[in-house]
Amino acid sequence: MILSPIIDKKANTPIYMQLYGYIKKEIIDGSLHANEKIPSIREASSTLNLSKTTIENAYNQLVIEGYVENIPKKGYFVSKLSNYKVSSNKKITDDNFSQKLTFQNIYVNNGVDYHSFDTVIWKRIYNKVINDENSLIHNSGDFQGELLLRKEISGFINRTRGAKTISEQIIVGAGVQYLIGILISLIKKDYSIAAVEDPGFKKAEYIFEDYNFKLAHIPVYNSGLSIDTLRSSSSKLVYVSPSHQYPLGSVMPINKRLELLDWAFKNNGLIIEDDYDSIIRYENMPVPCLQGLDKNDCVIYLGSFSKILLPSIRISYMVLPRKLLTKYSSLKNRYTQSASKIDQLVLSNFIKDGYLDRHLRKIRRIYKKKNQLITKIIEEKANNLFKIVNADSGLHLVLETISNKSINEINDCAVNNNISLNIISKKGNNLLLSLNYSGISDEKIPEFIESLIKIF
Amino acid sequence: MILSPIIDKKANTPIYMQLYGYIKKEIIDGSLHANEKIPSIREASSTLNLSKTTIENAYNQLVIEGYVENIPKKGYFVSKLSNYKVSSNKKITDDNFSQKLTFQNIYVNNGVDYHSFDTVIWKRIYNKVINDENSLIHNSGDFQGELLLRKEISGFINRTRGAKTISEQIIVGAGVQYLIGILISLIKKDYSIAAVEDPGFKKAEYIFEDYNFKLAHIPVYNSGLSIDTLRSSSSKLVYVSPSHQYPLGSVMPINKRLELLDWAFKNNGLIIEDDYDSIIRYENMPVPCLQGLDKNDCVIYLGSFSKILLPSIRISYMVLPRKLLTKYSSLKNRYTQSASKIDQLVLSNFIKDGYLDRHLRKIRRIYKKKNQLITKIIEEKANNLFKIVNADSGLHLVLETISNKSINEINDCAVNNNISLNIISKKGNNLLLSLNYSGISDEKIPEFIESLIKIF
Repeated sequence: MILSPIIDKKANTPIYMQLYGYIKKEIIDGSLHANEKIPSIREASSTLNLSKTTIENAYNQLVIEGYVENIPKKGYFVSKLSNYKVSSNKKITDDNFSQKLTFQNIYVNNGVDYHSFDTVIWKRIYNKVINDENSLIHNSGDFQGELLLRKEISGFINRTRGAKTISEQIIVGAGVQYLIGILISLIKKDYSIAAVEDPGFKKAEYIFEDYNFKLAHIPVYNSGLSIDTLRSSSSKLVYVSPSHQYPLGSVMPINKRLELLDWAFKNNGLIIEDDYDSIIRYENMPVPCLQGLDKNDCVIYLGSFSKILLPSIRISYMVLPRKLLTKYSSLKNRYTQSASKIDQLVLSNFIKDGYLDRHLRKIRRIYKKKNQLITKIIEEKANNLFKIVNADSGLHLVLETISNKSINEINDCAVNNNISLNIISKKGNNLLLSLNYSGISDEKIPEFIESLIKIF
Repeated sequence: MILSPIIDKKANTPIYMQLYGYIKKEIIDGSLHANEKIPSIREASSTLNLSKTTIENAYNQLVIEGYVENIPKKGYFVSKLSNYKVSSNKKITDDNFSQKLTFQNIYVNNGVDYHSFDTVIWKRIYNKVINDENSLIHNSGDFQGELLLRKEISGFINRTRGAKTISEQIIVGAGVQYLIGILISLIKKDYSIAAVEDPGFKKAEYIFEDYNFKLAHIPVYNSGLSIDTLRSSSSKLVYVSPSHQYPLGSVMPINKRLELLDWAFKNNGLIIEDDYDSIIRYENMPVPCLQGLDKNDCVIYLGSFSKILLPSIRISYMVLPRKLLTKYSSLKNRYTQSASKIDQLVLSNFIKDGYLDRHLRKIRRIYKKKNQLITKIIEEKANNLFKIVNADSGLHLVLETISNKSINEINDCAVNNNISLNIISKKGNNLLLSLNYSGISDEKIPEFIESLIKIF
């Protein structure tokens, strides 16, 4: 057999790779047959007028990939390939692809305020971490999260949320969903049904579903979920947002908190407390968390920096009760840390140096103003259309209205008006909506409400 | 009843919060009884000599939290609390806590080389993204991953790994484990057994276990896993690392690749290709990936930047076959994006501007040198102790040795000698080890090998 590749000595592709590519193609196409001998390195070097090293490199690569076999003292032979036909060489590109690189003109109403985040300070700390912590950023670090950050988080929630934690209880992760997954691996032997608030945080429900948990939907009233319904469900695990119910915005009163803790204690139950944005309250002060009231080790606390700092930094955390720590220690090495270590180090310095506290004072002012503005405009312009429910905290409004449109019609209409809307419930014509406004600039709020009105 | 709080007007805590804290404590302690009336705002203001606003703020907070009820025209009454006793007020701190803020003196042999990463360029792009993309970083972005990054990743693996992808197929996530979780949610209706390489990548197995998959362990020989054993298992899903088997380092030859693709095609099977560090090869060029050979839409490709760029930036990706895209679209909104959006934007610019290609050329030189150094020293100093298997690619060595110590003894000994060691298998006294060396500086390699020798 004869090798007759077309070699372009001026091409960017090294010559050995051109030769390798040629022989590989001949084998795949069937022009070179199984068990056929190919020329020796010396022969090929001479006929093709290429150096022996070039031929050897090409042959070696073919041997490594298994296209050719090197039988000692006999030479190089074409391997017998399976009859499976490989994909054609046709290149695939994004060019003729439908999705375009344009950004939707939708109101980014679920982001954070553009002026809230002090990028100068964040950049300064980021640069400092990269410069100074060179020995830390080149390895993957603690699977549980950097100890420096866990200490700061524990101090932060103890101070601002009335939690009672030490860093050993904190697990850092890229998003609450990932952390729920880890939690499930710790408890799935003893729990198989998750009670969830209805309406509630769907993204948590999805994770329980993915891990084959059954869901028990517990109705939520003004004072939080119904403990009686919880009791009569067979669930011993409940997911709640007591300090600012998602999406209704209600606060669970102390009496119900105690009842819930009592339920957990007596049933060997577990309470997952999602404390996503409770620190943002416009009147008085945030309602202390459930975790700090718990003396029987029944509460798992979930927190995140997405809402209060920046959604594009993905750092969330979970506080485990002490009784789950031994189990976690034994499973910890199964899960790599999902949050960026650099971001973890930056955030720990950001908290340590007092910038998070300062940031929170700032965003309370910003969002309080935005909140007042939006409720004022709704009352002025759409008083007969919307009733505002729970506007004293958090980053979204709950609105009551009446509409004879279907849910699909409303959703389509919202998209057409560039608004991201979340329909909580529709009973007959009675509609309950949640409306994020945190990402809208103050100047755009009147226009935003105009668009909202058009939907109904 | 009389309120007699001790108010410190000079304290940092606002007066209303001191009053609120005092009344709350009295209620919890039982000094104030259920249904007891507390003084009106006017009365309290007068007896305590505090402004009405201060009293009102304290009372409002107590009402919000449910300690006190405000009955219109009657006044404020203590709520009836459950008998559950709340946690004591004792503060918990990290101070007397066992885990110390010191860093272990262990060789960071599984990180990346300290000189490999160009922090100056990364910082420059990071700062540029924060300055210029202000409108992007304040919201949470595409759940699938930023389109800009997906385009760059797809171009990168098409160019360097022989893959055939478009950005629509790419899903970005913080770590391969998280992405496997998403994949499982797409396929779990049709697949319930995962075939895995033995020895193989344990962290993938854990995720399948967590989602209640059964595992079929398929033995790996020099040319990759046994297709016959795979055929006789009832699994239709297989997890492989064909271009650089983890941990053995072998390359699956083309013939077996075709057989595997044929198996998948004929059994409606799926192949998960983990291509974790195959781009790092010291002789010739990387072996093209399986995904690019597949013409029947059977391969899911997994890649990561942890090994080739920096482990502290948590960005991995998964390439879905087109037949799973519709299903993914319908489930996509269930999962928030776990990778930092800022890092995604920085990385997409890093790739677009050619820095990743430059970085790869650089680390191939760095690791080739390190690889030659470590194999040379092992051959000089421990030739009779270790046999080196597969040293021509990747960031770890596979060593064969003989030891009559137990696995536990060896592991303890490794920890005492500050080495992170992975025992692949021990049959009788025959031991197979994998040894990461990527994070060790060239100067420390002799010392590192000395420590390694001490273990045996």
